[in-house]
Amino acid sequence: MVKRYLDVVSLDTVENILATGFICMPGTLRVPLEDAAGCITAGPIFARYSIPEIHLSAMDGIAVVSSQTEDASEQNPVTIMDAVRVNTGNVVPPGFDAVIMIEDVWEENGRFTIRKAVSLGQHVRPAGEDLAESEMVIPGGHRIRAHELGALAGCGVTDIDVISVQVGLVPTGNELVPRGIRPGPGQVVESNTLMASAMLAECGAHCTRYPIVKDDPVSLRDIINRAVDENDIVIISAGSSAGTRDYTADIIRELGEVFVHGIATKPGKPAIIGKIREKPVFGMPGYPLSALTMVREIIIPFLARYGLPVPGHDSIPAYLSSAIAKEAGSDEFVLCTLGKIGDRWVITPQSRGAAVQMSAVRANAYLKLPAMQEGCEPGDLVQARLMVPKRDAENALLLTGSHDPVIDYLADLLQRRGISLISTHVGSMKGLLMLGKNECHAAPTHLLSPDGSYNTEYLKRYFPGTDVILVSVAGREQGIVSRDGISLPELRDCTFINRQKGSGTRVLLDYELNKAGISPRDIRGYEREVTTHIAVALAVRSGEADAGMCVFSAANALGLPFVPVAQEQYEIAIRKEQVGDARIRALIETIRQPRFRDILDSLGGYDTTVTGRQRTVS
Amino acid sequence: MVKRYLDVVSLDTVENILATGFICMPGTLRVPLEDAAGCITAGPIFARYSIPEIHLSAMDGIAVVSSQTEDASEQNPVTIMDAVRVNTGNVVPPGFDAVIMIEDVWEENGRFTIRKAVSLGQHVRPAGEDLAESEMVIPGGHRIRAHELGALAGCGVTDIDVISVQVGLVPTGNELVPRGIRPGPGQVVESNTLMASAMLAECGAHCTRYPIVKDDPVSLRDIINRAVDENDIVIISAGSSAGTRDYTADIIRELGEVFVHGIATKPGKPAIIGKIREKPVFGMPGYPLSALTMVREIIIPFLARYGLPVPGHDSIPAYLSSAIAKEAGSDEFVLCTLGKIGDRWVITPQSRGAAVQMSAVRANAYLKLPAMQEGCEPGDLVQARLMVPKRDAENALLLTGSHDPVIDYLADLLQRRGISLISTHVGSMKGLLMLGKNECHAAPTHLLSPDGSYNTEYLKRYFPGTDVILVSVAGREQGIVSRDGISLPELRDCTFINRQKGSGTRVLLDYELNKAGISPRDIRGYEREVTTHIAVALAVRSGEADAGMCVFSAANALGLPFVPVAQEQYEIAIRKEQVGDARIRALIETIRQPRFRDILDSLGGYDTTVTGRQRTVS
Repeated sequence: MVKRYLDVVSLDTVENILATGFICMPGTLRVPLEDAAGCITAGPIFARYSIPEIHLSAMDGIAVVSSQTEDASEQNPVTIMDAVRVNTGNVVPPGFDAVIMIEDVWEENGRFTIRKAVSLGQHVRPAGEDLAESEMVIPGGHRIRAHELGALAGCGVTDIDVISVQVGLVPTGNELVPRGIRPGPGQVVESNTLMASAMLAECGAHCTRYPIVKDDPVSLRDIINRAVDENDIVIISAGSSAGTRDYTADIIRELGEVFVHGIATKPGKPAIIGKIREKPVFGMPGYPLSALTMVREIIIPFLARYGLPVPGHDSIPAYLSSAIAKEAGSDEFVLCTLGKIGDRWVITPQSRGAAVQMSAVRANAYLKLPAMQEGCEPGDLVQARLMVPKRDAENALLLTGSHDPVIDYLADLLQRRGISLISTHVGSMKGLLMLGKNECHAAPTHLLSPDGSYNTEYLKRYFPGTDVILVSVAGREQGIVSRDGISLPELRDCTFINRQKGSGTRVLLDYELNKAGISPRDIRGYEREVTTHIAVALAVRSGEADAGMCVFSAANALGLPFVPVAQEQYEIAIRKEQVGDARIRALIETIRQPRFRDILDSLGGYDTTVTGRQRTVS
Repeated sequence: MVKRYLDVVSLDTVENILATGFICMPGTLRVPLEDAAGCITAGPIFARYSIPEIHLSAMDGIAVVSSQTEDASEQNPVTIMDAVRVNTGNVVPPGFDAVIMIEDVWEENGRFTIRKAVSLGQHVRPAGEDLAESEMVIPGGHRIRAHELGALAGCGVTDIDVISVQVGLVPTGNELVPRGIRPGPGQVVESNTLMASAMLAECGAHCTRYPIVKDDPVSLRDIINRAVDENDIVIISAGSSAGTRDYTADIIRELGEVFVHGIATKPGKPAIIGKIREKPVFGMPGYPLSALTMVREIIIPFLARYGLPVPGHDSIPAYLSSAIAKEAGSDEFVLCTLGKIGDRWVITPQSRGAAVQMSAVRANAYLKLPAMQEGCEPGDLVQARLMVPKRDAENALLLTGSHDPVIDYLADLLQRRGISLISTHVGSMKGLLMLGKNECHAAPTHLLSPDGSYNTEYLKRYFPGTDVILVSVAGREQGIVSRDGISLPELRDCTFINRQKGSGTRVLLDYELNKAGISPRDIRGYEREVTTHIAVALAVRSGEADAGMCVFSAANALGLPFVPVAQEQYEIAIRKEQVGDARIRALIETIRQPRFRDILDSLGGYDTTVTGRQRTVS
């Protein structure tokens, strides 16, 4: 087989090529004023007429000639013969030059008496007070703010030329199915161009998504040609690597030229930058997080060259909770969860697999580790780039430890109160360790001690001299999930899927195996680990394994048989000093809501008589 | 006439009424996934299937049974008999449990030899790695981020129920004309509901604007009834005060109840809050900035009760440049211009007229002065609430001093470079004073000394011991604008419109009047002041005055005769220490662009041979 390799260049080089290799001329689009908020003006906007066009009264009162009021005083009331009654907004009739408030006027038989002189122009809104005809209302290149539509409408603007950058996105790949069709084995729903076009539209680009094209050079060439004709920028999704079905680079080279094939970023390496008929053409990697990285770091900043303002990202200095391994050479982007614990911002890296889109859903921040850098150590102060408004990051509640499906329901209930619960599934033991280092707000845990008690012995060991609260989520049934009702003693004869070391479920399994006299070595697949209950159930349903241990609700969600093994105490550990925190208070209140108990009951396998109970471990 | 008064309540009271007086149940709207970015989920979204649904290869290579590779090593190559060739993304066939990268495989006649053992699960993406069927992808009440559309599409979501708050906006008033029609005398273009609906839509509300209704109780009642039926919230624009044509409160009272009529905010006092058939109904004041204030401070925060997240506003501590007069009793909101001068944020209040919409266009920040407070002093440290992204505020260039229409063109050219030029027209003298106090970046000035020189004598007086740069914008023709070619000596016989004290034009006028032996007292209207050249020309065109002094370009813009009086030097003063600032550099470069000179030439009345010249005054 023919092997081809990418000729990788640095991100700096890419930025340089993009800054110099293209003439970026945006088009313009005429939009009605009501659709113009958020758009960028293609040129300056001038007032078509003044606001107001003629002098108006600023008060309810009478219009007068100011010189006729000169002698009026409390001692010397003056009766004005030819005053005219005006309301706020009425035209001040020609010849009149001031308005007196109705409260300061004594009226009798249509004659007005005043007791105070007024100055020329008093309570008169002069023509052009707000804006004068021919004046510039807003400059070109300006992002129109919603409230500015008022002034624009007022001075006669009905529609506006705005900057328009047309981006065409071409999804490619034999494995792709369109949204709405259930993918068969090895197929995936086409989602990268959807994500990319939403991200680019947010920055003001106008995006067109083309139909899915198979990995076939002829069709690909056709649609790329068409997309180049119809757009300012073209993005081809997938096929950008150097495999046997990666045609993108060859076709761009055939129709134009390829500047870059391979960029030293992680994720995002198999990317292409080229030019066809003077227009930039990007080859976007197929792994979702690689595509996300290319859009965010390369394509969106490039839009600025067309006059679209690139949204800034706020940064927050934060302490890193765990090490990040990295070799020098690539700029790396790491999705993270960020939260404020006490007065300290703490940031935790997510899974770095480029296929795991949920990392980007869970993440509220990311790190850029420059090419020169060689990884980070726990405790390093790093610049967290926010993926949410800062206020949302401040309201993030970090729950780290044991996994249970009901944690997601807690997240749902808490979101209604403006709190983003971000849960990371690392198992009970690691959760307690992170709680001990103040790297999360709360740690769900269900750790069985040899004496049969739950959690307390571990807390005493990990938190000497520190008071910790345990709030009970529920008593919880653990058992064996399988396709045909396997029980614990039968595990010897089947393929198992395990939970990771340090998880409460693993501790429980080992305890139960020991009790039953079964050695882990006798269990095929004991070493294969996943990190959630539902992943265990899924491995069983898909046939990858015959059995695993999980909670009832996970087995039930996938319709699998479940043989109970033990009832355990699933609790959330919280440092006592944190109990006053508004997020923690909301968490505890939510657990105690009848609504949450109802959810537990409907999922099944939970003993809710203990839900919300609290105990303190000193 | 019957006088009615508003029964004013505090903003705190209003917030309390809104928090307790309504049951806020948002509707839901089903939107296709591609339109869902930025929407708020009405409930949690669950994965319809797993990503991936079945184990996939994460690499191009061969699928193997890991136990068959146990003995392989460099010394002991093993040939695998029943391996299967797989590409990235292919299904790992049943029975296989690991993938070996093609680079590590030696192939001969369809048989694969390896030199390294592999562990179970290597390079296999297990089913559910990204997301497992039945798992919650995002909770309810969550604002969908653009990049999340990828994960949602991937797991089978095609459309989403989002929170929908329907807001109906009813514009009322005999003086209103719809957009596209030129308002006659005393008429205005209906713009407040346009502004309000754009602001509310930005927060996620779905707005309907009803046609303009005359001030007629019968029509008003009909349309309010209809709007209440068709929406969750109704806003009636104008008619909310207590004048003879203000029917809004009476109609709300007739159809439901009125909780509040009059709110102690400035601007925004004549506002109404009521309830019809359990739905909140707001009466919005007619002055644009009063309406803006009510939307921003009362209605938008109220949307949070329907589950729409209220956008936070970032605050920056800034030094106030000038005093703000205020009496205790009302919460006051003051539109301001904010800029960073050196290391110091400086904020300057704008005109406070509730009718001056351009204040909101020019403003990039505002202040909230609480009811208890009694005004602010220059130098006070205040909390500036940003109306633009912080980065834009950092790029604001504050130009304060003399006015010239070309300053707007400078703003247009600078905006293309990402710099927002904010010009405040206070006249040359006040501009230099503010430059002296480091309250602006640059001050346009044209101050004539008795010796006939421009600007230098004033700089020596105001900036002793400080080096100041003067950059010439142009030589500029000043003259008398009129409807019938009046010249300076003829000013005695007509009504004049003047510029404000401290403006260069006023200084020039006084100098020329003195030279011609005319006393200001002989000029009718000498005391009547406006602050821009175009306002002078407009007062002349509208007949308010017969003549005024202004630059040629302003007279020309309104097609008025112009009799030249003098050629002056219009320059921009900049502290020398500031010349390195990127914004200042861009300003000077822009003045020197041929494009700017072309604009000056096309406007007329400018001597561009001196444009861009620089001199230093020590």
